Amino acid sequence: MINLEPIGYLRSEHIEVPKHCSISDLEGELVLAPEYTEGLVNIEPGDKIAVIFNFHKSPPFKSEKLKQRPPHRDSKKGVFSICSPKRPNPLGLSILEVISIEKNVIRVSGIDMLDGTPILDIKPYIAP
Amino acid sequence: MINLEPIGYLRSEHIEVPKHCSISDLEGELVLAPEYTEGLVNIEPGDKIAVIFNFHKSPPFKSEKLKQRPPHRDSKKGVFSICSPKRPNPLGLSILEVISIEKNVIRVSGIDMLDGTPILDIKPYIAP
Repeated sequence: MINLEPIGYLRSEHIEVPKHCSISDLEGELVLAPEYTEGLVNIEPGDKIAVIFNFHKSPPFKSEKLKQRPPHRDSKKGVFSICSPKRPNPLGLSILEVISIEKNVIRVSGIDMLDGTPILDIKPYIAP
Repeated sequence: MINLEPIGYLRSEHIEVPKHCSISDLEGELVLAPEYTEGLVNIEPGDKIAVIFNFHKSPPFKSEKLKQRPPHRDSKKGVFSICSPKRPNPLGLSILEVISIEKNVIRVSGIDMLDGTPILDIKPYIAP
């Protein structure tokens, strides 16, 4: 068992968000717990960052969700081949663009997560 | 607190791996727990997948690691601007290419994690 504690959360005024960051231009703020502020140095406006977060609204996973029909699709797909928030481990991943940084708050563009989403990690995005 | 359980682990014969998947052409196998096999349908050879894993060899995080000097760099960087395995939450992210799939085992190329690494999630990689 692996125990994680959020490093912060997403603050956003958007009630509805796109299904994926690749089709989002919405802005929001990653608000880190103040004790992590020093870890943000060297992140610059214009950088792309990979953000791992918790799908905190997802119910506990059930094996009947191993195949799911995504919205706007007509057949079920394996859960690991789609981005559904209903996953064995409720982890989300978004590639976001940094707009600005002030102390412990990063303003980002491209959000596809809900206001209040717990943030678990921020990494540099390096294209494959 | 968020509790996660591995969905499987990485099996690999490589003792040393590159520091990042973007510079690796090493192969290995993602061995899922058999109960998750059905979740792999619709993943195909040639697909790129995003794999979230646990840096299981990392010691507990200490605030003195909020800035770290990466190998081959001459100054310290904020932990969220680098890929170090020593992070507040010991999560890793690799973009890998699928070579083949047989039942609960995915053969992949591009590994930068150690043999035995616990796998937490597999998602389709969608370029930003």
